[in-house]
Amino acid sequence: MNSPDEIQRRSFEIIDAEVSEPRPFSGRKWQIVRRMIHTSADFDLLSKVRFHEKAIDAGIEAIKRGSSVITDTKMLLSGINKQRLKKYGCKIRCFISKKQVKELAKRKGITRAWASVDFALPYINGSIYAIGNSPTALIRLMDLIEKDICQPALIIGMPVGFVNVEEAKQRLISQKKVPYIAVVGRKGGSALAAAVINQLLEFLESE
Amino acid sequence: MNSPDEIQRRSFEIIDAEVSEPRPFSGRKWQIVRRMIHTSADFDLLSKVRFHEKAIDAGIEAIKRGSSVITDTKMLLSGINKQRLKKYGCKIRCFISKKQVKELAKRKGITRAWASVDFALPYINGSIYAIGNSPTALIRLMDLIEKDICQPALIIGMPVGFVNVEEAKQRLISQKKVPYIAVVGRKGGSALAAAVINQLLEFLESE
Repeated sequence: MNSPDEIQRRSFEIIDAEVSEPRPFSGRKWQIVRRMIHTSADFDLLSKVRFHEKAIDAGIEAIKRGSSVITDTKMLLSGINKQRLKKYGCKIRCFISKKQVKELAKRKGITRAWASVDFALPYINGSIYAIGNSPTALIRLMDLIEKDICQPALIIGMPVGFVNVEEAKQRLISQKKVPYIAVVGRKGGSALAAAVINQLLEFLESE
Repeated sequence: MNSPDEIQRRSFEIIDAEVSEPRPFSGRKWQIVRRMIHTSADFDLLSKVRFHEKAIDAGIEAIKRGSSVITDTKMLLSGINKQRLKKYGCKIRCFISKKQVKELAKRKGITRAWASVDFALPYINGSIYAIGNSPTALIRLMDLIEKDICQPALIIGMPVGFVNVEEAKQRLISQKKVPYIAVVGRKGGSALAAAVINQLLEFLESE
């Protein structure tokens, strides 16, 4: 069985079979969580994914409008189906490797991910902001949102790790202003955040 | 606490504290596994990482020689510290987006990852071949190795998923010809494979 479509179909069947009904998610939410499990083989996600009630629609609408998709890392950027996003006119932006970001981070002793958010500011309104690695990016983004400086259409909040991570995600899911899809706790990752965007694109393809 | 070095140091301390001694790994193996846990927040790895006895030395020597580092996905390639690898003269190669790979995969109904291995063949001998996504890439690579067609210096075998994945990794860890670092079971991922390479680079920096 080497056809990629066949492998994916079969993988989804296995996940469906192993997570018996009633599942913690249904409909489009389940399709997103299932793809995240497919990407990680991690069934822990069943208890860790959180959806703002408008998140899926907000994400789909943002793509339809050709919004920017901003990522905290190149890894996440690499995992997204760029060809499909471009079809909708979406620009994918990642500032982490920008020379000025490196300089600012070094000068201030902050992470490059934090500095990147400041450079992303002109593009954040109406965008999908996806964070698969850095809690400091999410913290900075929440600062800007809470001060009404910007308003993304959707935040995919999935930083991973041991320091600042859980607090940053709690802050995200405790607010109601910006729709989010998040993984609470320590887990997360670029592959999971990419899976969410790719599943949003799947919804659009099958509309 | 926003300095990246400080965050990483603190994260390693937390992992050290939560995995009490005697740990399943020590020395350099523990440093690798700890970085993988840091990257994923997944303590399951403690029972799932497998090292060929010569793997770490083989990886370090390969980098010192300026060998090719071949990856199955762009995501994995993005996660590697390329600047450091280049310092040693290593070339990082990924064939997945090559036009001919796409054409071959389509024509034969195989995965692009499988087709990529055939295109990588001129560079495989003495290389580090890192697989963070596709079991079919690992299967094809094992085919070529078992037929004495090529011999990488080290395989980082961490495909993830539900179909063909466990079998492919069992095949890798059942052979003795090529050193490997693997994650058995369904789990794996580009971030984990990248973490291994980045830790090998750390060893070299502190030599």
